[in-house]
Amino acid sequence: MSNAHQQAEADISAGNYGSYGLIQSSEKRESVNFIEIWIRGRVHDSRGKGKNCFVKIRHRIHSVQAVMFVGADISKQFVKFVQSIPKESIVDVYGLVARTPQPVTACTQSDVEIKVRRFFIVSQAELRLPLQLEDAIRPDNDQEELAVVKLDTRLDNRVLDLRTPTSQAIFRLQGGICEAFRKFLSFRGFTEIHTPKIISVASEGGANVFEVSYFKGHAYLAQSPQLYKQMAIAGDFDRVFTIGSVFRAEDSNTHRHLTEFIGLDLEMAFHFHYHEVIQTIAELFIEMFKYLQGNFVAEVEAVRRQYPAEPFLFTPSPLILQYPQAVDMLRAAGVDQGDEDDLSTPNEKLLGRLVREKYLTDFYVLDKYPFDMFMRGEEILSGAQRIHEPSLLTERAKLLGIEIEKIQSYIDAFRFGCPPHAGGGIGLERVTMLFLGLSNVRLCSLFPRDPKRITP
Amino acid sequence: MSNAHQQAEADISAGNYGSYGLIQSSEKRESVNFIEIWIRGRVHDSRGKGKNCFVKIRHRIHSVQAVMFVGADISKQFVKFVQSIPKESIVDVYGLVARTPQPVTACTQSDVEIKVRRFFIVSQAELRLPLQLEDAIRPDNDQEELAVVKLDTRLDNRVLDLRTPTSQAIFRLQGGICEAFRKFLSFRGFTEIHTPKIISVASEGGANVFEVSYFKGHAYLAQSPQLYKQMAIAGDFDRVFTIGSVFRAEDSNTHRHLTEFIGLDLEMAFHFHYHEVIQTIAELFIEMFKYLQGNFVAEVEAVRRQYPAEPFLFTPSPLILQYPQAVDMLRAAGVDQGDEDDLSTPNEKLLGRLVREKYLTDFYVLDKYPFDMFMRGEEILSGAQRIHEPSLLTERAKLLGIEIEKIQSYIDAFRFGCPPHAGGGIGLERVTMLFLGLSNVRLCSLFPRDPKRITP
Repeated sequence: MSNAHQQAEADISAGNYGSYGLIQSSEKRESVNFIEIWIRGRVHDSRGKGKNCFVKIRHRIHSVQAVMFVGADISKQFVKFVQSIPKESIVDVYGLVARTPQPVTACTQSDVEIKVRRFFIVSQAELRLPLQLEDAIRPDNDQEELAVVKLDTRLDNRVLDLRTPTSQAIFRLQGGICEAFRKFLSFRGFTEIHTPKIISVASEGGANVFEVSYFKGHAYLAQSPQLYKQMAIAGDFDRVFTIGSVFRAEDSNTHRHLTEFIGLDLEMAFHFHYHEVIQTIAELFIEMFKYLQGNFVAEVEAVRRQYPAEPFLFTPSPLILQYPQAVDMLRAAGVDQGDEDDLSTPNEKLLGRLVREKYLTDFYVLDKYPFDMFMRGEEILSGAQRIHEPSLLTERAKLLGIEIEKIQSYIDAFRFGCPPHAGGGIGLERVTMLFLGLSNVRLCSLFPRDPKRITP
Repeated sequence: MSNAHQQAEADISAGNYGSYGLIQSSEKRESVNFIEIWIRGRVHDSRGKGKNCFVKIRHRIHSVQAVMFVGADISKQFVKFVQSIPKESIVDVYGLVARTPQPVTACTQSDVEIKVRRFFIVSQAELRLPLQLEDAIRPDNDQEELAVVKLDTRLDNRVLDLRTPTSQAIFRLQGGICEAFRKFLSFRGFTEIHTPKIISVASEGGANVFEVSYFKGHAYLAQSPQLYKQMAIAGDFDRVFTIGSVFRAEDSNTHRHLTEFIGLDLEMAFHFHYHEVIQTIAELFIEMFKYLQGNFVAEVEAVRRQYPAEPFLFTPSPLILQYPQAVDMLRAAGVDQGDEDDLSTPNEKLLGRLVREKYLTDFYVLDKYPFDMFMRGEEILSGAQRIHEPSLLTERAKLLGIEIEKIQSYIDAFRFGCPPHAGGGIGLERVTMLFLGLSNVRLCSLFPRDPKRITP
């Protein structure tokens, strides 16, 4: 450990500050003391002139103020050293936790601060940052004329953007979605599986599929785990779920499309009616919302501070709307909706608002055949009973113009007995976006991929 | 519901058997009665002539015998109908659960059987099966001169092969590995993340990477989530894990290589020494083994019946072997091992046996820099402290001949402060294989991919 400045002037703080240099696992140390404390965090910002310094130390969604004054224990050189540390540097601060004379509103820990005794740089940031964290945290709709960070700038410098309390909260909560999904399904006897992403045939007709060079031949990236989930059902797994990457070569540059996303998929054998499956999936969503609401209060609040949104409403038991009911609601609102027609995207949105007003829920199931599920008026799951009878499947594939020999191994899966089954899949990023009421799915992908972006 | 045979002769069992036809969600029914029971399962096999029939009904790793005799309640036609049902058909059987006069050794439920009252086909299998389940279940080393199913035949007809109790058990246990991995790490404050599989640059020099056509350009499939895990650490996630597909365009046709597998990866910021990370990962493994041993007894036994193996040994606290200790052990066993040389694969295997004898564990850590972890003498994790300092990283990349501009966004991730960190990744299929003592990783991949196989 070396001090930053070896000065001629006697330094009463020598040894209490400096840079560790590169931590190379050369020594092991206890880093916690329960009377005074060591904290490791980032220098979010610092202010101070001459004899004092106030540093906001940030760790993920938390922050605390560290204070120091030149005096009997603290040298001028020490204060100067701390003042000069670039923002975003990682530091170890040691000191006394003390009640603040008045609340420090800029920090999440507003009633205590750290009276600095020691201060070391763990990893120093460059002085010039491509974006300022303060700007990246600012609400988009802030009234003041202050800098706002554009989405592309955020994504180009994603590592910095991920450090905002908002991003930290989004991805903590996203982890919770996966956890709730698995917990519910495991409890219901589902087996977790993993399906191949490299496939030999562009299963859904060949459009929107990425091609991969595969040794001397070529292959494709799976657009969905559906066929493999179904083969697992034919293989007696009974109830399966899988969380994995899904690839869509769709040139859609919208707020809700990604070329690569995480699919939360499930498939379930049923006894007599696909409603058994609808009921299970709908309950899954309700349990997931409850879990998020119960365990991610701080995260939801952190996101709301930057992106205000109406709270996500849901009912204790799922609302399952029959399709004719939905048509009636739209017609009552003045929409010309046919009995059998698919809903247009604007009508889906409108129906979402009507359902929210009438039933106080942002989640509902639209039960037709196949079935859809919605969050805030956007479709987040399209499910269906599958065809488990090979001759019927062959007939339907022919009708759709699919070359039978190309999907033979899939059809064959049903030749040796297969239980009736149904299932569906949801996009993790979309569910995160819609639960939080965000406006762009890219905010919910760690390193988003779209037709124009495959970096960083 | 229609009977299979509408016969002139009066049928006292009419209505109690037949085929449901295709279940199209036309009615809902309760399917459980707690005095007599309905069971749904596959006809594993059946025997009987004329007036009686014994059917082995299989459901996943369980099986039970159903019996019927022509009599006051059961017609000749009914018995004939059941005798004619092809193996692997899915059926609903209703009847009384009764104690058997003597144990039915061929079934897992050996002390009870079902006295059939009703019997319906849910989904009928074709008569000719590409492989017989009995053959697929038979131990490879069986002394008798009976058919054994070759690995390629299994994989070509994977849907049938997945129905064996062995396959069912393997994948139930594999789900447990993921569960234990996540449970341990979540409890220790790790955040689950998802990293992109489509990347713009062939990160590790360009060899062994699959190329993807990406709209008008091209991209690659990630060989590892490492760079993105590290960027998440630079993005303040502190501790992360990810479970996802990993792609290797390696033309290796061995028992342990796949071109696509599931990586269980983690990365962790540490305070002062990478031993903090080694300790965490080693404890993770121990907890995982405990969880498997405690919760998958039936599954391990099911696999052992077909593939006998020595039980997997481990110690309550992980054995961490210093590299010089390992060298000494090998030398004492007569191996000419240099102080700094890497271990050859045969020497790794030998060391595994020596460690097992001396320390009674099939799991240990070899602590050098970087660090390795082993199961049954095969390396299953290669971990390391990473370089988190951009100038040092640039220098090392240049030494390795990597074009700096291609990995610039990765290097840039470390320019704005990054904590020291270390991590590693393990292959899910390999861990499954080695825990169970299986001889081929393909048995542990639902639909394995290798240089010669991308179907089904």
